[in-house]
Amino acid sequence: MQKSLSVYDSDGSTFAPLVVIELVSETKEEAIAWLLNRVRDKQQDGGAELLVEQLTPGAQGTEKDNPNVYVVGASWQRLLYGAEDVGLFKEFNDGSMRGFTYANKHNFKEFQGDGDGFLSMAECQYIIKHELDNLRAKDEAHVPGYPKMKLYPGKSVIRRMQSKGILVQVFPLHEKEELKRLSFSWFKKIKLSFQPLDDIRHYFGEGMALYFGFLEYFTLALIPMALIGIPYYLFDWEDYDKFTVFAGFNLVWCTVILELWKRLSASLAYGWGTLSRKKAFEEPRPGFHGVLGVNPVTGRAEPLYSNAKRQLRIYLVSVPFVLLCLYLSLYVMMIYFDMEGWALMIHDEEPTFWTGLLLFIPSIIYAVVIEIMNLIYRYAAEFLTGWENHRLESTFQNHLVLKVLVFNFFNCFASLFYIAFVMQDMVLLRQSLATLLITSQILNQIMEAFLPYWLQRRRNKKAHKRMIKTMEDKELPLSEQVKLEADMSTYLGTFDDYLELFLLFGYVSLFSCVYPLAAVLVVLNNVTEVYSDAFKMCKVFKRPFSEPAANIGVWQLAFEAMSVIAVVTNCALIGMSPKVKSYFPESETQLILWVVGFEHFLLASKFILTFVIPDVPKHIQIKLSRLEFESLEALKKRHQKEPVYKRLTYRV
Amino acid sequence: MQKSLSVYDSDGSTFAPLVVIELVSETKEEAIAWLLNRVRDKQQDGGAELLVEQLTPGAQGTEKDNPNVYVVGASWQRLLYGAEDVGLFKEFNDGSMRGFTYANKHNFKEFQGDGDGFLSMAECQYIIKHELDNLRAKDEAHVPGYPKMKLYPGKSVIRRMQSKGILVQVFPLHEKEELKRLSFSWFKKIKLSFQPLDDIRHYFGEGMALYFGFLEYFTLALIPMALIGIPYYLFDWEDYDKFTVFAGFNLVWCTVILELWKRLSASLAYGWGTLSRKKAFEEPRPGFHGVLGVNPVTGRAEPLYSNAKRQLRIYLVSVPFVLLCLYLSLYVMMIYFDMEGWALMIHDEEPTFWTGLLLFIPSIIYAVVIEIMNLIYRYAAEFLTGWENHRLESTFQNHLVLKVLVFNFFNCFASLFYIAFVMQDMVLLRQSLATLLITSQILNQIMEAFLPYWLQRRRNKKAHKRMIKTMEDKELPLSEQVKLEADMSTYLGTFDDYLELFLLFGYVSLFSCVYPLAAVLVVLNNVTEVYSDAFKMCKVFKRPFSEPAANIGVWQLAFEAMSVIAVVTNCALIGMSPKVKSYFPESETQLILWVVGFEHFLLASKFILTFVIPDVPKHIQIKLSRLEFESLEALKKRHQKEPVYKRLTYRV
Repeated sequence: MQKSLSVYDSDGSTFAPLVVIELVSETKEEAIAWLLNRVRDKQQDGGAELLVEQLTPGAQGTEKDNPNVYVVGASWQRLLYGAEDVGLFKEFNDGSMRGFTYANKHNFKEFQGDGDGFLSMAECQYIIKHELDNLRAKDEAHVPGYPKMKLYPGKSVIRRMQSKGILVQVFPLHEKEELKRLSFSWFKKIKLSFQPLDDIRHYFGEGMALYFGFLEYFTLALIPMALIGIPYYLFDWEDYDKFTVFAGFNLVWCTVILELWKRLSASLAYGWGTLSRKKAFEEPRPGFHGVLGVNPVTGRAEPLYSNAKRQLRIYLVSVPFVLLCLYLSLYVMMIYFDMEGWALMIHDEEPTFWTGLLLFIPSIIYAVVIEIMNLIYRYAAEFLTGWENHRLESTFQNHLVLKVLVFNFFNCFASLFYIAFVMQDMVLLRQSLATLLITSQILNQIMEAFLPYWLQRRRNKKAHKRMIKTMEDKELPLSEQVKLEADMSTYLGTFDDYLELFLLFGYVSLFSCVYPLAAVLVVLNNVTEVYSDAFKMCKVFKRPFSEPAANIGVWQLAFEAMSVIAVVTNCALIGMSPKVKSYFPESETQLILWVVGFEHFLLASKFILTFVIPDVPKHIQIKLSRLEFESLEALKKRHQKEPVYKRLTYRV
Repeated sequence: MQKSLSVYDSDGSTFAPLVVIELVSETKEEAIAWLLNRVRDKQQDGGAELLVEQLTPGAQGTEKDNPNVYVVGASWQRLLYGAEDVGLFKEFNDGSMRGFTYANKHNFKEFQGDGDGFLSMAECQYIIKHELDNLRAKDEAHVPGYPKMKLYPGKSVIRRMQSKGILVQVFPLHEKEELKRLSFSWFKKIKLSFQPLDDIRHYFGEGMALYFGFLEYFTLALIPMALIGIPYYLFDWEDYDKFTVFAGFNLVWCTVILELWKRLSASLAYGWGTLSRKKAFEEPRPGFHGVLGVNPVTGRAEPLYSNAKRQLRIYLVSVPFVLLCLYLSLYVMMIYFDMEGWALMIHDEEPTFWTGLLLFIPSIIYAVVIEIMNLIYRYAAEFLTGWENHRLESTFQNHLVLKVLVFNFFNCFASLFYIAFVMQDMVLLRQSLATLLITSQILNQIMEAFLPYWLQRRRNKKAHKRMIKTMEDKELPLSEQVKLEADMSTYLGTFDDYLELFLLFGYVSLFSCVYPLAAVLVVLNNVTEVYSDAFKMCKVFKRPFSEPAANIGVWQLAFEAMSVIAVVTNCALIGMSPKVKSYFPESETQLILWVVGFEHFLLASKFILTFVIPDVPKHIQIKLSRLEFESLEALKKRHQKEPVYKRLTYRV
């Protein structure tokens, strides 16, 4: 826990600040007073029963600083009750993971004394966020001082203030000591070792730890591919036929690593207590709007939005828009091929070193244009998905992921498909693949880590020297730390990071048989990716709230879909190889039938393999069923303890 | 509830007999006394706390009758507690389905007075079976009187006595009045109406009701196919090209009906309270043996059998055996084609009416041989799966289903695949399909309903007249009824019934584009199937114990796999049609590529459709999440009621 900082509570005692709430500077006094009271109120009065204080500006505070910054904390007991509310799983005395209950707290392994240190700071912050989000309007008709900011019983206060723009942000504080230790073991020393996943989870939560776990796993899983790819590059660069063996290995490997990841992720999630944790009922996302009605599940007043209207918006606007974008992307691709042909023409007329370089220019321009199109489309997709007005954050995310995935897949791979199957030019395919892969990697690294870092440095230009000096200094006052962190960029979730891995996976698996070196490049990229991602999490961004996650969710599905498409493309490429063609000298029909048969066999094996490999390792299955068995037994015993019922005779 | 029968308990009161236990006639007295005591003992003493009495032979009892027949019943309170133990779901006052608890009993909708009539007889019998199965050895080292019949603490007494052959059978009694009413509304009146599924479920349990529900749904779903198929038969018998339209319709239809069935089955299971019911921990199946060890889940002493050994048995014996059988089946198929050629030769030499008939002989013989091979293989598969020594009944069933499915699929369809894709003879395909379908339908109806009925009649030859007379007579004494029912055949579960539907589904979907009349034949067959199945359940077999089921389990998967194979075969057949071929006059390669592309598109659409259509209808999803939400809220309220904790200040 935070040792270095504390604020004085209204009754003079101190508490550790965990979360910061920032309101706009011109917020009306009555609204602030009302909000603080609601946060402080006892739970039985409908409050959150948290500790909250205004941040007193430090010595260096200037006129321009926003005075409406509040720090929130809670007593240890409140946090422990909160841990039960959010359904936290912790290690029990017998080594199994169980739902934490306050009454049973002393039977949990790491619970010592009064429970100080039992919850990690990230968990405490998650609990506080949960309690703040669940602070609901009672009989207030609107936010005091703002008659237009309507409330109704049961509406989340924080979410309403956020969507109306009074609440600027809610974010958890960094813990400098812990962060320093984490940074050191994570990316400051260059060494051959695994990432400190448990520490990452301890500091950033399960969702983030699973991303880094997957990144590491994916990199390690690519190493065999890379090792096999290197001799292909060194000795047989032009021997396209031998690559069919490589492609066969590749297909089996794709299926197996994805299945094994499920097992590994289940092990990790079990150890972190998120595997069997039940999801709380999901509240509407902040941007959701509709006509006030009654939610059929909760019975609470809540805005409702007709599903039919949403479907209309999706099918009449979003789907045509996505199709239009796909068409545009195809159009840009055709321009690229024109440029390519023009460059080739110039080179053929009078080949010099410079015209040789010119050959690469169209590919590089195309790669840059693709990245820009992806970026613009991303904003459009976010706007459209918001406009579709999904009730839940999770549905919103799924629709957004689907839109972005389809477009990015198309945008990145359409030209490769065109070269492979329409032009059937394997040399060009290899060259384009290499250019696209390398360009997009370089661009990504710039966009992801260096650009935000540079932007932040520019923003903090004035405060820069002070920051650098004081970040090292343990005695930095709380108000300074809060101000520094409030100005950092906000991390928008693991979406972009997973998307990047997804596209890399596509480059490796879809056309692996023409360019075995792809795996080597991706491994190299991923190694630097670990460092740059770790760096940006620790140094560039605000600390994100921890997100409990049991798996990588929709991305598992996306990767599996990609591996199915990879079977199809690789089989087609194998069928087009001269050597395979030479086995069927007379009849092309026979060749195609064999390839299609082989492809169907591979697809069937893939699905059988998915069924046969259990998603959860045996030892964790046993632990889970032991827990379930025990709860059933406990239920039975409870009955037997009840007063023995008389044997009532039944007259017929 | 049973009104007409009762037995006197040991203390003079009467109870309604529900379940019959039959021990072998030479069972030692001490074993019987011990068993009866264990059944009668209070639950806190480790007994089942049930009522059990020896059946007093009736007036017509003969010397040969087995005296060791016992009837088991229970007090109403015991049954209500048992309902909570087995986790029964019942309709709550607010219309939702909730887990029954004794303490909360008055809040359930149909609970009136002392709860008489709240549980159906099938539920009572299921509870008694559950309690009997859970009667566990305490510190007995063996069954009294049988030193070789080892017991260990925690071993199910009933299962041990069953596997050692002392216990002949445990079966639930029929209720004549209810059965009469059910039979009347189910199959005695010929009418156009749905089956009384709720009554079937009430009498036979959810597993059986789901089978009949599926049979009915499947038949109704085939009617559009049949209606479209009839004009094809009447007008365009030889116009093979138009069938491609039919095949396209067929493929969409297959996917849609299977998805819709999931929704319907979820609705049914919700109404019957099995959808959200938790499965109790599964005990080892009676035939399971191994070295005594400790079960890692329950911590109880239990025989353990190494998984590695089982895998060895599966991969080194079972798999080769299945492959050998498949080879044999292929061999028989080749003999059939020889016979077919020989018959054709004779007919071509000198065509008469008789040689025309001769043409059908090989197909008929082949169909009969297929049925016989299926039957023999079935026994072999059961033996092998038993020998594989699976711990759970459910795993045993899955392995058995897999073995039998693969062989039956191969056996029934191999010749059709051969004709369609190797010989490419569409006329012969249509003819074989018709012969196979019709012959197997006739054989099935005979084997399923008439054979057991006839066998039973022969067995009961002597008692026959008496039975017929007294079955109508309400005053048939209990001992007579028990004796009659004990002699009836045992129903072995829905396996064979589902298997038959599965094969029929194959005949309809795999080659639909060459023989649209198949759907008509299957509809006709299914209508009689409903009647013959209902008849055999009510008249031929012993009453089975009700089996709680939320869906049709592994069969859903089997049907979906069949519909995927149907996409592949139908696309191939379409590609082979002369009309489609005529679109690509120059290049066969182009044709194949288009067909393969179309097939991939269909398969992708199928998977997307499976994702897009939710498995559980919206209104049931809402009810389920309301229940979950309420239990979470209840948990929260429980905490808020607890003494308000002091705000502990945290010193930093």
